[in-house]
Amino acid sequence: MITESLLRSYAALAVRQGVNVQKGQLLVIRAQVDSAPFVRLCVEEAYRANAGEVIVQWQDDLISKTAYEWADTEVLCQVPEWQKDREQHWVDRGYCLLNISSEIPGLMSAIDAAKIQQVTTARRRALEKFQDYTMSNQGQWCILAIPNPQWAQKVFPECDPEEAVDRLWQAILHSVRIDGRQDPAARWREHDEKLARQSEWLNRQQFTSLHFRNGLGTDLTVALPEDHLWAGGAEKTQQGIVFNPNMPTEEIFTMPMRTGVEGRVCATRPLSYQGKLIQNFWIEFEGGRAVRWHAEEEEETLSRLIEFDEGSCYLGEVALVDVDTPIFRSGLLFYNTLFDENASCHLALGRAYPMNLKGYQTLSEQQMKDRGCNFSMTHVDFMFGSEDMRICGVRADGTTVEFFRDGRFCIAEEK
Amino acid sequence: MITESLLRSYAALAVRQGVNVQKGQLLVIRAQVDSAPFVRLCVEEAYRANAGEVIVQWQDDLISKTAYEWADTEVLCQVPEWQKDREQHWVDRGYCLLNISSEIPGLMSAIDAAKIQQVTTARRRALEKFQDYTMSNQGQWCILAIPNPQWAQKVFPECDPEEAVDRLWQAILHSVRIDGRQDPAARWREHDEKLARQSEWLNRQQFTSLHFRNGLGTDLTVALPEDHLWAGGAEKTQQGIVFNPNMPTEEIFTMPMRTGVEGRVCATRPLSYQGKLIQNFWIEFEGGRAVRWHAEEEEETLSRLIEFDEGSCYLGEVALVDVDTPIFRSGLLFYNTLFDENASCHLALGRAYPMNLKGYQTLSEQQMKDRGCNFSMTHVDFMFGSEDMRICGVRADGTTVEFFRDGRFCIAEEK
Repeated sequence: MITESLLRSYAALAVRQGVNVQKGQLLVIRAQVDSAPFVRLCVEEAYRANAGEVIVQWQDDLISKTAYEWADTEVLCQVPEWQKDREQHWVDRGYCLLNISSEIPGLMSAIDAAKIQQVTTARRRALEKFQDYTMSNQGQWCILAIPNPQWAQKVFPECDPEEAVDRLWQAILHSVRIDGRQDPAARWREHDEKLARQSEWLNRQQFTSLHFRNGLGTDLTVALPEDHLWAGGAEKTQQGIVFNPNMPTEEIFTMPMRTGVEGRVCATRPLSYQGKLIQNFWIEFEGGRAVRWHAEEEEETLSRLIEFDEGSCYLGEVALVDVDTPIFRSGLLFYNTLFDENASCHLALGRAYPMNLKGYQTLSEQQMKDRGCNFSMTHVDFMFGSEDMRICGVRADGTTVEFFRDGRFCIAEEK
Repeated sequence: MITESLLRSYAALAVRQGVNVQKGQLLVIRAQVDSAPFVRLCVEEAYRANAGEVIVQWQDDLISKTAYEWADTEVLCQVPEWQKDREQHWVDRGYCLLNISSEIPGLMSAIDAAKIQQVTTARRRALEKFQDYTMSNQGQWCILAIPNPQWAQKVFPECDPEEAVDRLWQAILHSVRIDGRQDPAARWREHDEKLARQSEWLNRQQFTSLHFRNGLGTDLTVALPEDHLWAGGAEKTQQGIVFNPNMPTEEIFTMPMRTGVEGRVCATRPLSYQGKLIQNFWIEFEGGRAVRWHAEEEEETLSRLIEFDEGSCYLGEVALVDVDTPIFRSGLLFYNTLFDENASCHLALGRAYPMNLKGYQTLSEQQMKDRGCNFSMTHVDFMFGSEDMRICGVRADGTTVEFFRDGRFCIAEEK
């Protein structure tokens, strides 16, 4: 059984090591209404951590589904001015954001995908400028997840709902290094340091490209822009406040060269997108652009993702994850990107993180583009890591080094 | 056990007989996050009734309590522009409102009452002009309630939480005339007709004042303005859409003459206000104004209510309820005004309903005031009916008629 004390540890970890809310700062929490018991703990822990105000923006995916079933597309596409003003007001107040995710896998599977796409696009476009606030680390943000019965039974189909929820809680708490014994904050500091050492080694190499190969059919070259930066674990806001944007996190990641991706990547995990589950798929890239793809299930959904906008057929992220991480070793398939991306090397279609380019704070959007940074209104991770993954780095002088073998980093860490 | 089918009847009653949502209309639902399962049924039933869009404005009183405990008063008093714009946007769209109440009695009892008062006043003042939309029936609105475990255990202290919730559901469904056999819509039409006949009889009398007496110490004269109107049960918007603002409702009510209330009223039910429970209280009026009062419990809270603003020491409503109503006969004390006011004759401190004055649509606020209508940012009902209540009406020519005796109407209904 998951005790209240463990849940409170998780809430405290979220507001302190996660968003790291500052004294007097506004914290906005986005959460499902069914997550209320955990949200209440987060609100309390945030005030204990000296937050100035905590505002909860509630959502209910079941009601969203009903709206998709009944309301007109034009009605759902509307984004009234007050919603933009609300975002602007929070930006003006220098808020931080805690996103408590609790998705129901496949909830939208019976909904017309074109309608979802149209509504998502309209809403994203209307609120696009506010996405920047978190995407470019102007304020701290953190996304983590808590179970719901439907999700838990998808992960543990052999259990009754209550037992499944309990086991998913255990898996989640294990993944975020809460065990009820050791201090989770200390474990996170140690973990963040390990990821920082890996990033720093890669930053020193400044590989011009990476070559990924495994026995499942992946044979992919990903060029990296000049002055790319690897990051992972804790990040810093532009004002220097440290935070952990993802909990759990096991990845180090950087920005691919927009037009420099060639070859085929075979996914090793299903991808949940707009409530649909895309399974067993591959994508081929030429000149950076996805040109051919196939999925055994939900191929149309994969097409919608790739064709979402001008930038969604290019990559915005390449991330390396070791198979020795607790999530990979758990052997669980979470049907949730936040966890599954941390089990395995992955790529993202869509927008790149500006912070993965040195000096991004002073570059215009056009300058970022010229240097190889991809822009899009979407950013969707998909997994392609495996236990036989090998990665070779190519340096500017043409020398190569295989720094990742059998799914693991094989560099001697220089300290 | 309360079946899903009974709950769905209640949801359908709420959106059809309650707010009577029109084809293509925007319905806004205000509800607690813990009410989500019932809210989802209301959303579905609203779309089935051809609502154009349903928006849920979620609240969580437990988080509000935490905010009161931790956040600064000045922070909580802020009402950013986007909140006003949101209200205005809904008004512009001609919305209707369903308020699904689920209060926890006494939740705020440990919170500093002055802080609650200050925050409530600031927020009311900022949003005052939007209160008009429902107060003067520009759009349809309905308030009803659903149980929560804490409330249920207050009403049924001898039961465990689950059984208490079940019994409170039964009591609520009984009070709104849902029994799983007869058509609730037909029962509501019949009930609305009965209340309309009582109102019409009183409207024909045009009493200049009412004199209330019982053995508990109430001896109160309430003058009524010229051209006052009694109303009860179904109401109409200014565009003529019929709706039931309260479910349940057993009252017929009108507007007292602001300066024409004299004598003492003794409350017969506790009053829940700002999360506190005011018990065993009386109030004395002179020239319409509450001048002396006493409460055995929470007297300070009663003082805050009466001294809330300039208009809160005057009466805004006088309502007559027969002791033969299902709620009085149930013998239950609900600790919730929506129910308890329908067990018993009651008065309200604060704002009067403009619709209780003939021709109100064309009168300015000053003209309304001149004719005896009270204005305030608050409107709080309290109960003073009893089984030995007698009410005497005084006509303009000085003749009197005792039309209410032993807690019941004793008029021969003229048809």
